[in-house]
Amino acid sequence: MSRFWSQVVHGLSPYVPGEQPKLGNLVKLNTNENPYGPGLRVLEALRAEAADSLRLYPDPNSERLRQVIAEYHGVERANVFVGNGSDEVLAHAFHALLKHDLPILFPDITYSFYPVYCGLYGIEYKEVALTDGFEIRVDDYLRPNGGIVFPNPNAPTGRALALNEIERLLLSNPDSVVVVDEAYVDFGAESAVGLVKRYPQLLVTHTLSKSRSLAGLRVGYAVGNAELIEALDRVKDSFNSYPLGRLAQAGATAAMQDRAYFESSCRKVISTREKLVADLQTLGFEVLPSAANFVLTRHPQYDGKELTAKLRERSIIVRHFRKPERIAPFMRITIGTDVQCAALVGALADILRQPV
Amino acid sequence: MSRFWSQVVHGLSPYVPGEQPKLGNLVKLNTNENPYGPGLRVLEALRAEAADSLRLYPDPNSERLRQVIAEYHGVERANVFVGNGSDEVLAHAFHALLKHDLPILFPDITYSFYPVYCGLYGIEYKEVALTDGFEIRVDDYLRPNGGIVFPNPNAPTGRALALNEIERLLLSNPDSVVVVDEAYVDFGAESAVGLVKRYPQLLVTHTLSKSRSLAGLRVGYAVGNAELIEALDRVKDSFNSYPLGRLAQAGATAAMQDRAYFESSCRKVISTREKLVADLQTLGFEVLPSAANFVLTRHPQYDGKELTAKLRERSIIVRHFRKPERIAPFMRITIGTDVQCAALVGALADILRQPV
Repeated sequence: MSRFWSQVVHGLSPYVPGEQPKLGNLVKLNTNENPYGPGLRVLEALRAEAADSLRLYPDPNSERLRQVIAEYHGVERANVFVGNGSDEVLAHAFHALLKHDLPILFPDITYSFYPVYCGLYGIEYKEVALTDGFEIRVDDYLRPNGGIVFPNPNAPTGRALALNEIERLLLSNPDSVVVVDEAYVDFGAESAVGLVKRYPQLLVTHTLSKSRSLAGLRVGYAVGNAELIEALDRVKDSFNSYPLGRLAQAGATAAMQDRAYFESSCRKVISTREKLVADLQTLGFEVLPSAANFVLTRHPQYDGKELTAKLRERSIIVRHFRKPERIAPFMRITIGTDVQCAALVGALADILRQPV
Repeated sequence: MSRFWSQVVHGLSPYVPGEQPKLGNLVKLNTNENPYGPGLRVLEALRAEAADSLRLYPDPNSERLRQVIAEYHGVERANVFVGNGSDEVLAHAFHALLKHDLPILFPDITYSFYPVYCGLYGIEYKEVALTDGFEIRVDDYLRPNGGIVFPNPNAPTGRALALNEIERLLLSNPDSVVVVDEAYVDFGAESAVGLVKRYPQLLVTHTLSKSRSLAGLRVGYAVGNAELIEALDRVKDSFNSYPLGRLAQAGATAAMQDRAYFESSCRKVISTREKLVADLQTLGFEVLPSAANFVLTRHPQYDGKELTAKLRERSIIVRHFRKPERIAPFMRITIGTDVQCAALVGALADILRQPV
C-alpha cells in the first residue's frame, strides 16, 4: 500500500504466468510453447533486420504485417489489428470494447488473465460454469451481457467449440462484442475468422506464440469488423504508438508467409498429441479431448499437484492449477517432441509403479 | 461512433507520431532518432538471439536487463522497471501513479502524449504555461496537485531544468509523484536519477530510442523508489506479462553495457548540435538553448510551416507543430550527422535567398 499509488493499483491481482526456469536439461512442458523453433525464413528475416536501421522508429501501424495477415485470412487490411503479443491485443480489446453497463461473460474455467483485465479496467464480469464435461454450452451465454469472451479451444481444458455453435451464439447475441481467443486454434479447432464478414460484433484474436513458434518475439493480432479494429487502434494510439519493433514486424511477417513450415510443425504437434493421449490412457489417465497443443489430464488415484511435484524431481515440468477447484486434480501438459513426450510417459509409468 | 465501443473510446484523441516516410534518399530530421546506428555489440547480441530459442517465452520480468540498468545507474534491481518503449512505461506510470483526486500538472508546451494518456485513463490535468523564454518555472508547480510530469530537457523546446531546481520542486512537493521524463537527458542535461534514493515520490523515465540508437527495438525504463516500481509492475502484470521479447531484452542489455559506444555517439551529436546552432544563427535564426538531440528554431521573416514545406521539396524532413500556437512559428530539427546538418543549412540558405 502506498499513498502514491492510483486507487486501481491497490486492488490488482496480477496474472501469474507459468514458470520460465533458467536451468538447462529440463523437459519443459509447462507453458504451451511449440517444441519446434521458428523456420529458417523467420530467422533470416530477423538477422537481416539486426542492422543500422534499428536507430529508426518502426512503422507505427505495422502496415506490411497487417497486409500479410489480411491476405492470409482473406480479409481486408482494415480488418486486422496487431499488438505486442495477444495479451496486449486482449488488454486493448477489454479496454476498448468490453466496458459497458452490463457485466461481461466468460467461462469459470478459462484463461485466467480475463478477470485480471477486468480488474485493471474496472469491468464487471460473471463467470459461466462449464458443463460437467468441461464444455462451453452456448445456451448459458444467451442472456443480457456487456460482452462475451472465451478461448476456442478453451484453455486449460483444450476442448473446442464447434463453429456452428459459435455462429448460434453470434445470431442470438447481436448487440455486444464477442471475442473468440483463438490462441490454440491451429492445433485442431475450426477458426471463426470466416464469420467476421457477417457478424460485426465478432473479434477473433490470434497469437504467433504457439503455432508460429514465436513466443519469444511477442506478436499477436485480431481480426474483426473495421469498426472494432478502429476502437483498438484508438486505444493503441493513446497508449503506445509503436507496439511492435522492427524485428517483431519483420519476423512476424516472415512467419505468416511461411505457410508450409507452419503447417508442417502443426501436423507434428497434433500427431504427437494423439500418441500422448493414447499412452496416457494406457496408464489409466483420463484425458479431456484436446484441440490444442496441450492436454488436461488426471489419474484416478493420484493428485495433480503431487504428480506435478514428482515429475519435477525427474526434471520434467508440467503445469498444475490450484484453482479453480474443479481442475485442481488435473495436470496441464504441453505437447513436446515425440522424445519429450516419451520421457514424460516413462516418468509417469515409473511414478505409478512406486508404492503410494 | 459505434455501439460496440466502450465509452472511453469515443472521447480519445490519439497521439500522432512524426512521419516515418518510406521513400529513400531523404534527410530525415523529424523524429529525433540518432543519426548513428547501434553498436556492433548490440547487433551481435541480436543476431545470436535470432535462434531456435525464440519458440520459448522471454523472461517475463527482464531480470538481467533490469540488473544491468540498476548497475549502470548505481541503484538496486528493485528500483528499475522496464517496458516496451518509454511510451509504455509512461502509460503505466499515468495509470498506476498519477490518477488521484486532484488534477496533475504538466507544461503547456511539452510532449503531446501526456494529455492523451490522461484521456485514456480519465485523469484530470492542468497545463502550466512555460515562461516567455519557454522555460519551466518551478514556482508555478508549487500548488496542490495529483502528480507532476515533465520532460527534462523539455520537448519540443530542448530547454533543460537545472538539477537544483528539480530538487527544490521535490522538497516542496512531498506528497504526490513527480515523473521526470529524461528521454533526451544524455545529450546535455543533468539526470535526476541520483535523487531517487532521497525522494520516494520521484520517478525518472529513460528510453533507449535516442541516445542508445534503438528506436526500432522499443525499450524504455523507469528508475524510482521500490514502492513506485511495484505499482508499475502490478499494472504491467495485469496488462501483458511479457512486454519485452527475447530480442529486445538481449539488445537492450548489450546497449546498456557498451558505455564507450554510447558516450562516443552522444559526443558526436552534441558537437554537431553546437555547429548547427551557430550556422542557424548566422542565417538569422533564433534557436532556443538545447540540451537535447534537436533544436527548436524560428526565423524572424519566415513561417515555420512554410519553411518546413520548402525543406520537404528539397527532400529534407523536419517537424512543424501547428499547436500550441506559441510554437507554430518554429521548426523542430533533429540533430543528424554533420553531412546531413550541412545539407539542411545549405537548403535553408538557398530558401532564404529566394524572393519572398
